[in-house]
Amino acid sequence: VPVPSAGIEWLVDAHGCDAEALGSLDTLATLFASIAGELGLQPAADPLWRVLPDQAGIAGLLLLGESHLSCHTFPERGLAAFDLYSREPRHAWPWAERLATQLGAREVVVRELARGERPPGPA
Amino acid sequence: VPVPSAGIEWLVDAHGCDAEALGSLDTLATLFASIAGELGLQPAADPLWRVLPDQAGIAGLLLLGESHLSCHTFPERGLAAFDLYSREPRHAWPWAERLATQLGAREVVVRELARGERPPGPA
Repeated sequence: VPVPSAGIEWLVDAHGCDAEALGSLDTLATLFASIAGELGLQPAADPLWRVLPDQAGIAGLLLLGESHLSCHTFPERGLAAFDLYSREPRHAWPWAERLATQLGAREVVVRELARGERPPGPA
Repeated sequence: VPVPSAGIEWLVDAHGCDAEALGSLDTLATLFASIAGELGLQPAADPLWRVLPDQAGIAGLLLLGESHLSCHTFPERGLAAFDLYSREPRHAWPWAERLATQLGAREVVVRELARGERPPGPA
């Protein structure tokens, strides 16, 4: 595996979550704090939150020193989509375990993607 | 292709960009405004910017009504990594063309990913 030249990103989709957790700003703020804290990432600003009308879900964005974290939740579908981007390589967070505990997720799909790699091409 | 159930995301890596453009907050702010404006996405807050020390790059995050946009730039490597997430399906933005014009990008790699799809599994 080549060294990523523009960082690394985890795209995490959590299925079968508790609708109540996905609609709770407190729950999501606690989750953001635990992700940043356990990975040793320093917030560079307060998180931005947007609570959609009609309990349609919540969006969150957190700018970190060398990275960022986002989430978008869909309480009615039991779904949440997280991105964690980092300029530097780092250890993975235990998404499946933690999201099961904190959101009641029954299935967590994690994609780890290198950023800035060139695709194979001619010469 | 199944309908995405937690939205869609474009991960865009731009190579061979002008170092000066990648280190310019004005250039990146103009770019963010043109992406949001051309796609008809309404900002839900002011963008967050972080200029890294030693001209190491700039990070930007923009919370939009039903989506978000991020960038991380690496002027010395001529690289920029963008994410555009949307809760709803929408048309792609002409990344290659626009980033060539606005950042001098020589090669743009776009990955379009459905969010919230279940992987194939037993039963």
